[in-house]
Amino acid sequence: MKRNVLIIGAGGVAHVVAHKCAQHNATLGEIHIASRTLEKAQGIVRSVHAMGNLQTSGVIKAHGLNALDIKATAALIRATNARIVIQAGTSFLNMAVLAACVETGAAYIDTAIHEDPAKTCEAPPWYANYEWKQAQACADAGVTAILGAGFDPGVVNAYAKLAVDELFDEVSSIDIIDTNAGSHGKYFATNFDPEINFREFTGSVWSWQEGRWCESRMFEEQRAWDLPVVGRQTTYLTGHDEIHSLSTHLDVPNIRFWMGFSDHYINVFTVLNSLGLLSEQPVRTAEGQQIVPLKVVKAVLPDPASLARTYKGKTCIGDLVRGVKDGRPHEVLIYNVCDHEQAYREVGSQAISYTAGVPATAAALLIADGTWDNRKMNNIEQLAPRPWLQLLETMGLPSRIRDAHGDRALLSPCGKLLKAA
Amino acid sequence: MKRNVLIIGAGGVAHVVAHKCAQHNATLGEIHIASRTLEKAQGIVRSVHAMGNLQTSGVIKAHGLNALDIKATAALIRATNARIVIQAGTSFLNMAVLAACVETGAAYIDTAIHEDPAKTCEAPPWYANYEWKQAQACADAGVTAILGAGFDPGVVNAYAKLAVDELFDEVSSIDIIDTNAGSHGKYFATNFDPEINFREFTGSVWSWQEGRWCESRMFEEQRAWDLPVVGRQTTYLTGHDEIHSLSTHLDVPNIRFWMGFSDHYINVFTVLNSLGLLSEQPVRTAEGQQIVPLKVVKAVLPDPASLARTYKGKTCIGDLVRGVKDGRPHEVLIYNVCDHEQAYREVGSQAISYTAGVPATAAALLIADGTWDNRKMNNIEQLAPRPWLQLLETMGLPSRIRDAHGDRALLSPCGKLLKAA
Repeated sequence: MKRNVLIIGAGGVAHVVAHKCAQHNATLGEIHIASRTLEKAQGIVRSVHAMGNLQTSGVIKAHGLNALDIKATAALIRATNARIVIQAGTSFLNMAVLAACVETGAAYIDTAIHEDPAKTCEAPPWYANYEWKQAQACADAGVTAILGAGFDPGVVNAYAKLAVDELFDEVSSIDIIDTNAGSHGKYFATNFDPEINFREFTGSVWSWQEGRWCESRMFEEQRAWDLPVVGRQTTYLTGHDEIHSLSTHLDVPNIRFWMGFSDHYINVFTVLNSLGLLSEQPVRTAEGQQIVPLKVVKAVLPDPASLARTYKGKTCIGDLVRGVKDGRPHEVLIYNVCDHEQAYREVGSQAISYTAGVPATAAALLIADGTWDNRKMNNIEQLAPRPWLQLLETMGLPSRIRDAHGDRALLSPCGKLLKAA
Repeated sequence: MKRNVLIIGAGGVAHVVAHKCAQHNATLGEIHIASRTLEKAQGIVRSVHAMGNLQTSGVIKAHGLNALDIKATAALIRATNARIVIQAGTSFLNMAVLAACVETGAAYIDTAIHEDPAKTCEAPPWYANYEWKQAQACADAGVTAILGAGFDPGVVNAYAKLAVDELFDEVSSIDIIDTNAGSHGKYFATNFDPEINFREFTGSVWSWQEGRWCESRMFEEQRAWDLPVVGRQTTYLTGHDEIHSLSTHLDVPNIRFWMGFSDHYINVFTVLNSLGLLSEQPVRTAEGQQIVPLKVVKAVLPDPASLARTYKGKTCIGDLVRGVKDGRPHEVLIYNVCDHEQAYREVGSQAISYTAGVPATAAALLIADGTWDNRKMNNIEQLAPRPWLQLLETMGLPSRIRDAHGDRALLSPCGKLLKAA
């Protein structure tokens, strides 16, 4: 049994992870939250108390930490006796936090791929540029590392693995679809850190098609889908973390990621990007000040956490899987619908943060009870999907499936696949 | 005879002023160009030599100067023995440069109203907030100051004065129309300093209607006009310098300014403005750096001077004047059409800078020969318009008139108004 959790970061996802860990602190033990800005971590602690989200009385404590400082992070892991570290801070921190876990033997969980602030869209598969280089170090140290344990990457990887293993004889394509039919009521905002959000779209788009990497440009390929609950949604082919592990671990020739964008989002993005305001290369003002334009854009945009209070509507994220079953063409959509207002009532966050933070907490529970504690590095599709998906049923993210037999819950209460509506 | 000219600034307008002064240096004497960035002033000197624009061999020299430093500017005026100062730098400098002229007795010319970097769109009339407060000081010191001696403000004020005095018995409205049907081929750029350009549109729009100030918002009122050469142009009611002097000095109940904008310009402007990126209030990045967003936007946009080389097409700027003549309704359009490529061939600038810089130089010639050297402060409509307009005929900015009698040159070669085509 691994106990005591250290959460790195104090943004939207860390907020949800803290609340959900608190709801399971009888199992997880002490909860520690470390952020560069101590006040932000303290704010999360206060909100957990205020919303009464501690399952049982216990330690929940904020710490100031520069998580790029591996020695400092290792010292905090030791001081808190944390056996599970959930890296929910900016993606720039992954490799430093992972190194601190290797040094201390603590398990590691993150929800997004590592990024180097100086680079965008490196050569695929992206995991091979950073995380996978540490796989041997994890195995040597007996460290369980679970990469990309949010919703996407994360739950969509588990859906893919489940489909390949149990629903098809042969899978020809997996289209991961991420749509948000919610509205925050602002002129413009990103749903998570603008710096990370925009970085996803400023470089090339990498997709896995016909068994090889294809490069295209953002907003070049559009596809509309009729989705449950949220209806018809327009999406665009986008590069995304999970394509880079699924294409390695599953024998599927087409793996694509589609993200929904409104025309308004695309217009604002196009203006900012065309002007060079999304660049992370510093520019020099007429007065001689050096500044990274993207950091200024981030500074003027609403804080994503501030959107939650008034966010209305729902997200729909899932995998449309096509292939052959019993000699016949077969198609399933496995998905989750998450409600912004419901997420806010439960943990004080909108659905985008909620869908990323809840699965990471569920992964921590599976490490704590040993189910996923295999003492090596894993992407989600390398782990048994059912225990995780079953846990998510009761933690706020139930899965559904739509196929020729109709639209129904994916799993029965005892975790069996439901065959018909 | 006043001789020796000191040009303040080294941007697009200063570049044109330097070239045009050089073309008249037999009259104007030495030409000195002072800029905060010495290299920029040196670049202008080099381009004057390279294009062979010196009328006769003589001094043309670059100086480094912080023109906000009144003592330093006065010292440079004395050292160069400049009797005419043309303030062609940023509008933030007007009052400091004017003070140096009052101190030294040199004549003062500018092409745009003074602005305080900390304020936008102050109470009308704007001139009363700054320049006019120094009218008595100018008169006391015997200093000739000519305010707004570009095209708009400037030539359009002379058109208005000419119409009121010579073409109508009574004028009911003056609509100043500023359109640019040219194309610079970039995704987006402003034709002069982005900081000054955007400041014109981020506050309230002040117009003079029915004999009083009306406040509206930018892009609220649209009007399309069929103009000579450039054809149908869509314009928007905009606040502008000349309304603030013409409404005081001419007895005309409606004076409005209309600026042409493409849908693309408005879209980019709206995105930037809505996000807060055109603000001059500093913001703080996540890393703690303080920065004024507008200065970052300026830093990423093309340098307006860099547009000239590939700029194609024409500007059309003029006054549509309506009223009564001989008991009957009467309407005239007095205007100039300027060609970007022709301006570039002559002085290495696009037409926006050219139309502002040439009239300022013509004003300097009228001070030099005594015509306009009245030793007090003037807006253009307080001076005789004909000598200036006649000079502009031969300096690259001929005026035309369109009325019920057709479309023709405004003046005959000897300066008489032409009555019919």
